[in-house]
Amino acid sequence: MEPEMIVELEWESAMSPISTPETAADLAAVAALLEMADRLGIVPLLERGEPVTTAQLAAAADVPEEGMAGFVATLVAAALLEPAGVKEFRVADDFADRIHASGYLYWSLRANQPYVEHPAEFLRDPAGAAALYRRDGREVAVSSRWIGSQGFYPAATEAILAARPRRIADLGAGAAGLLIDLLGRLPESTGVALDMSAGACREASRAARAAGVGDRLEVVERPIQSLADDPAPVAGADVIHAGFVFHDIVREGDVFDRVLRRCREALRPGGIMAITDAVPYAPDGRERRFSALFTYLHAGFMDVELPPEEEWLERFRQAGFDQARCVPHRFPGGRLFIAPK
Amino acid sequence: MEPEMIVELEWESAMSPISTPETAADLAAVAALLEMADRLGIVPLLERGEPVTTAQLAAAADVPEEGMAGFVATLVAAALLEPAGVKEFRVADDFADRIHASGYLYWSLRANQPYVEHPAEFLRDPAGAAALYRRDGREVAVSSRWIGSQGFYPAATEAILAARPRRIADLGAGAAGLLIDLLGRLPESTGVALDMSAGACREASRAARAAGVGDRLEVVERPIQSLADDPAPVAGADVIHAGFVFHDIVREGDVFDRVLRRCREALRPGGIMAITDAVPYAPDGRERRFSALFTYLHAGFMDVELPPEEEWLERFRQAGFDQARCVPHRFPGGRLFIAPK
Repeated sequence: MEPEMIVELEWESAMSPISTPETAADLAAVAALLEMADRLGIVPLLERGEPVTTAQLAAAADVPEEGMAGFVATLVAAALLEPAGVKEFRVADDFADRIHASGYLYWSLRANQPYVEHPAEFLRDPAGAAALYRRDGREVAVSSRWIGSQGFYPAATEAILAARPRRIADLGAGAAGLLIDLLGRLPESTGVALDMSAGACREASRAARAAGVGDRLEVVERPIQSLADDPAPVAGADVIHAGFVFHDIVREGDVFDRVLRRCREALRPGGIMAITDAVPYAPDGRERRFSALFTYLHAGFMDVELPPEEEWLERFRQAGFDQARCVPHRFPGGRLFIAPK
Repeated sequence: MEPEMIVELEWESAMSPISTPETAADLAAVAALLEMADRLGIVPLLERGEPVTTAQLAAAADVPEEGMAGFVATLVAAALLEPAGVKEFRVADDFADRIHASGYLYWSLRANQPYVEHPAEFLRDPAGAAALYRRDGREVAVSSRWIGSQGFYPAATEAILAARPRRIADLGAGAAGLLIDLLGRLPESTGVALDMSAGACREASRAARAAGVGDRLEVVERPIQSLADDPAPVAGADVIHAGFVFHDIVREGDVFDRVLRRCREALRPGGIMAITDAVPYAPDGRERRFSALFTYLHAGFMDVELPPEEEWLERFRQAGFDQARCVPHRFPGGRLFIAPK
């Protein structure tokens, strides 16, 4: 089965997404309530899906139990929690979908708030505004994880699983969510997670141990640029994946080309390079609005010019991959580029 | 035609609103782009619906024209603006719907951010947190206006128009959007807008003049509580409306009862008292999520306990209105109470 076939799912419609005023009210309310749950620190406890008591949630949040009871009652009223026995509650069946949908609101309106709130300052003095208004790393990470739970990597996951790799590298792996998922499904495989953030690397190691794959996951704290001179971490990989990290080095001269070339050399024969990233201003009705925001935030506030699809493919060709192809992606404006060695 | 009949529209379904992950991405992106437009100060210019140039928008926002051109291109890519001739643009046909839907996101996630971001502090020390974390009045006003454009008052508008009033009072009128709309449709009528905020009153006077009804609208800067002792501003009205303001005085002893009683006395024979307000934790699938957030934000952060439907009706009866009734409302959790004198 070709990777293209695997990812041709039902979302490839040029239709505009359906919505009503109630939909907006619904999504906004759920996102606000889940942000409160996140700020209270109880989302991990809820996400397990097991019944929990108000006392357990109050202890996790370090707040009075009576107060937590009021919040839990609100989550039940909002259909996010359901009663599960005496004084016990469990997340509703669609909780994961709700987290995912809320990720788009959390990312757009909260994680990017310093940009969304100050467009005039950025248009008048980009450098000065950039120094003044910075995003909160935790908000970016949480909202990205919520979107990523269903939005970023299903296409990549399918393509990687189809290759039955023994060793997988992920560049800009963050907390290694993709690798931990893959290693759980491929019990004979090992992986290497590379990220420039010490915090992300610590979280990746912790999460891998918690998921029982700690002995098969190597974590390397390094920027992707470092592979241009030393590709050792990815040597011998069957699959090298990079999610939303190559666009950060588009403007750094020949670094992009050198990193991609080193990855190709490091891959085992028959190995696959897979990049999940974004194209600018995707025109499809399904994705044009979010893609417009995503493109503008990167260009106007983060000094990142997303390459169009043809430029992504050309960069693969220049690095020696002569069979690179682009497959559609659920994340609005997202694309999966797959290139066999 | 009974008022109930007029407002029994198609939204009375117990179904949950339809949504997909694309819907969430779409709504989030549009809300973030419209918030940027709001911060740039160009929404009023766009809302006129006439073609505008990038130069006009840049001048209104006081930013360089080249930068505004990039933002305009993004609004076009997001289907919020459409080209209208050479270098001219006009809002898309669904712009008003987009503003309305974005109001729910702006209100929930941005105007209420001080609450949504600090639930633990409010649960541990409500008074201390309330002193520390306050909402931005402008964000509350803008987001309320965006929701209100289609969400708050269609039911009230229909009921009031059906009464063919010569004089209309609106309590907690804000920028007098409802009254200005009504006076535009009732060229023989006059109105009085009462609000405790000096800024809202200034904006009401300005907007009434701009709409050509300034000579028929009286603006009175007073809190609703003051009517308990001096109902002069509402004397002789055929309709007295109050939107989302009576819930603020639920806890103030007998003030609620006295204000409502004075309003009844002040009404002309056959006049109508109409209150648009909210009930707590509305259970219908269409409204339960937003109603849960709305209820919790008021109870947990603003010390406002919304009265249930029966309690609203009982308060009308106590004030001497023996034919009060409750009609459904598009705003999730909202209700319109109508009581003839």
